[in-house]
Amino acid sequence: MSEQAEKQTSVKARLPRGLADRGPGELAGADRMMHAIREIYGLYGFEAVETPFIEYTDALGKFLPDQDRPNEGVFSFQDDDDQWLSLRYDLTAPLARYVAEHYDKLPKPYRSYRAGFVFRNEKPGPGRFRQFMQFDADTVGAASVAADAEICMMAADALERLGVARGDYVIKVNNRKVLDGVLEAAGLEGEGRGAQKLIVLRAIDKLDRLGADGVRLLLGPGRKDESGDFTKGADLSTAAIDRILSFTSARGGDNATTLSRLAATVGESARGLEGVAELQEMSALFDAGGYGDGRVVIDPAVVRGLEYYTGPVYEAELTFQVKDEYGRPVRFGSVGGGGRYDGLVARFRGEPVPATGFSIGVSRLLAALQAIKSPIVTGAAPQGPVVVLVMDRDQIPRYQGFVAQLRAAGISAELYLGSAGMNAQLKYADKRNSRCAIIQGSNEREKGEIVVKDLVAGAALAKAAKDMPREEYLALKERAQFAAPEADLVAAVKDVLGR
Amino acid sequence: MSEQAEKQTSVKARLPRGLADRGPGELAGADRMMHAIREIYGLYGFEAVETPFIEYTDALGKFLPDQDRPNEGVFSFQDDDDQWLSLRYDLTAPLARYVAEHYDKLPKPYRSYRAGFVFRNEKPGPGRFRQFMQFDADTVGAASVAADAEICMMAADALERLGVARGDYVIKVNNRKVLDGVLEAAGLEGEGRGAQKLIVLRAIDKLDRLGADGVRLLLGPGRKDESGDFTKGADLSTAAIDRILSFTSARGGDNATTLSRLAATVGESARGLEGVAELQEMSALFDAGGYGDGRVVIDPAVVRGLEYYTGPVYEAELTFQVKDEYGRPVRFGSVGGGGRYDGLVARFRGEPVPATGFSIGVSRLLAALQAIKSPIVTGAAPQGPVVVLVMDRDQIPRYQGFVAQLRAAGISAELYLGSAGMNAQLKYADKRNSRCAIIQGSNEREKGEIVVKDLVAGAALAKAAKDMPREEYLALKERAQFAAPEADLVAAVKDVLGR
Repeated sequence: MSEQAEKQTSVKARLPRGLADRGPGELAGADRMMHAIREIYGLYGFEAVETPFIEYTDALGKFLPDQDRPNEGVFSFQDDDDQWLSLRYDLTAPLARYVAEHYDKLPKPYRSYRAGFVFRNEKPGPGRFRQFMQFDADTVGAASVAADAEICMMAADALERLGVARGDYVIKVNNRKVLDGVLEAAGLEGEGRGAQKLIVLRAIDKLDRLGADGVRLLLGPGRKDESGDFTKGADLSTAAIDRILSFTSARGGDNATTLSRLAATVGESARGLEGVAELQEMSALFDAGGYGDGRVVIDPAVVRGLEYYTGPVYEAELTFQVKDEYGRPVRFGSVGGGGRYDGLVARFRGEPVPATGFSIGVSRLLAALQAIKSPIVTGAAPQGPVVVLVMDRDQIPRYQGFVAQLRAAGISAELYLGSAGMNAQLKYADKRNSRCAIIQGSNEREKGEIVVKDLVAGAALAKAAKDMPREEYLALKERAQFAAPEADLVAAVKDVLGR
Repeated sequence: MSEQAEKQTSVKARLPRGLADRGPGELAGADRMMHAIREIYGLYGFEAVETPFIEYTDALGKFLPDQDRPNEGVFSFQDDDDQWLSLRYDLTAPLARYVAEHYDKLPKPYRSYRAGFVFRNEKPGPGRFRQFMQFDADTVGAASVAADAEICMMAADALERLGVARGDYVIKVNNRKVLDGVLEAAGLEGEGRGAQKLIVLRAIDKLDRLGADGVRLLLGPGRKDESGDFTKGADLSTAAIDRILSFTSARGGDNATTLSRLAATVGESARGLEGVAELQEMSALFDAGGYGDGRVVIDPAVVRGLEYYTGPVYEAELTFQVKDEYGRPVRFGSVGGGGRYDGLVARFRGEPVPATGFSIGVSRLLAALQAIKSPIVTGAAPQGPVVVLVMDRDQIPRYQGFVAQLRAAGISAELYLGSAGMNAQLKYADKRNSRCAIIQGSNEREKGEIVVKDLVAGAALAKAAKDMPREEYLALKERAQFAAPEADLVAAVKDVLGR
């Protein structure tokens, strides 16, 4: 191997763009967050399921958001029988495959949740990764919008469980049928209008970022952005654009006001009225559950960028602001969203299977929780192990015995395994965030003693002011390092860890 | 969408070969198992780290076991800048990349663990998947074999923590340097012997399966298997083969006996003697830690199939037998293994970086724990949610209120969201493994009552013998279904759940 190693030293240790390693702090925070979400989802009767990372490309279909060129965006490769395989790009398409494949044995309605990495073969950027984690919950086989309402309430509960205060988030709800009604009333429904409708959807989805004026351009002739790039518009008439923008701005002070405005906007469209009735039904459920107090709000400005939604759509938004590293206010905005996709399982089964689901962007939510210092993700910095120093190499079995005693008492502990001297060993313990180190040189060994170093007290001692009262100084010194009988090792360490 | 759906109903819902979905039971068992392993690894001072699934192909290198054609076996694809990317095939190569990339900021020695899926683009078979999970622990930067010994003891602790009884497992330890010494003593060392050495390694690695006679053929002229396929042999002389087989069978009744036999087998080879001395050092540590009682055993028959090991190699074996579904005895054998790979990080850094690590095959270990019915993975079957039936669709907000009360009390509960009648709703509750269902029709509503159905008592009632004493029957009937005031919903459900 060493020969081979010398030949190959030109290999550079680096990751492809848009991929990242995660250390113990981030992993522990994410674990606690996911555990809390699972708890809430379990309370709602959702059960865990997991699908593999690789699927047949045709089974996944092409349902990427904002993906005009559908063959791009996905990592794909050919199997040895020439069939195309892809890394999953979301957790919804694999769920549709899973439900269709196991349809008969699943309870229906089938409530499930799953968390896992998904992959996008896109240009990465700040906060935009090619591998990232989603946490999804879906109900398949329930046509009633009570299923959508339930997921909205569950999202609210999950955010509060994670430490987001009431008032710092809102679940926004809309219905694609209402939008369809508005388009119909504007004379934009019918055969061959699919592409135009998608442009309208994506234009409205940019309201947050571009404002009404920007969206007006995208609904009309098109829009040139700051960089000079031109985006083709939907070429709608001014009357149609006005109607759409009066729809998206129809949110009132409460859900009842919003609903009556929407009813006016859809005119006579049967589909539009059906959508309004569904929102009314959901609104009644939010009120009955106590979520109609501003936690779950009907907001027609929410449409979601995905083509496959067929009914209610919803989005979880964090409304508070935090300062970024330059002191600028940053609003967190959306941390998850979803909606009803009654056609997705139908791709496999040839009959419509009603379904609705919600997806959390795990990294974004984690960043938000870190920003508000939620105890779920911050907690105490993980305490490093007790480090037993190696003073005499021929005594390693004896030191190993100390370590074993500590572990048997449930204390994380390790033998220093490098070849450095005592000072470097103590520095190592600091780097591991250890609370204490155990030392036994030949002097101590002969006396049957160990020396316990409290590294926190030691650091305080090193920083102590010169004019510290002598008694205080001596007490600190005594705490920072003291001898104990070898037999009292565990008790002495417990004493320091309990300080 | 529905139009599109009709067009696409020819898509078949299926997974590519060698990939599998996992349901709630298996996921819960695996979660508990991994949690227990993390606890033990944490006690030993190992910290979590995670690397992405995709790496540069050249950074991963070609270190697959039993992979004669190294370009196969790995899922690879080209990035948009034409560089080759691969899905990781193990967790060791990415760790080497990670350590090399972050070398200066890591504590050294660096103890870490990581669990995650790896991918093999191989022909799948029974129990052989193309995506499977490994759980690895590695110490990088410690040249001392105390690091190897520590990992062996940690593996023993982990197995016991998982419910494998002492005596039902053994950690077997060997050292590649001893094998090198044997080969040297047999006149097989030196330039250009690499390929032959690899054949010898892989032949010995098959001892378990082929026995000494089969391995003798592989070390000599070659071997034809049952299917008639011929495997080329190492073409060694009879004297060399005898020496190797006397080495692999050198295990004695205890480690001391084995060590003295090994010392005799390596002759004058300096490298062989160094290997024996390392095993001696490890043996002393096992004794000091109390693991020399047969839990960690020096066994020269263990060589491991990977080329890159440079010193100690070790394997965790489950020694008990269980019956398979046909009643045949099955021995679990190896559930994990590892060894020292001092050259792997060197590929990036141009200087040797000592490292040793251990990898658990998660699915195999999980299957073993299920076979011995370890409480870690079996536990109680997960209890399904309380199901609130929908008797009158216009009362859904009221039913939703019941569900919210139960959840607020920490009880997993759900509203039935389908469109079926009462009997189908009760069947659904059974399928969800629910303990009880809540019913409120118009009669109960008018009286301000609910009906609680205990589904377990109900099942017992349905099966009750005809000649059951009447009093007993009535008591069972009362338990199976009873009315309660609506205000006592939570208390009544708690009563049933506590039965």
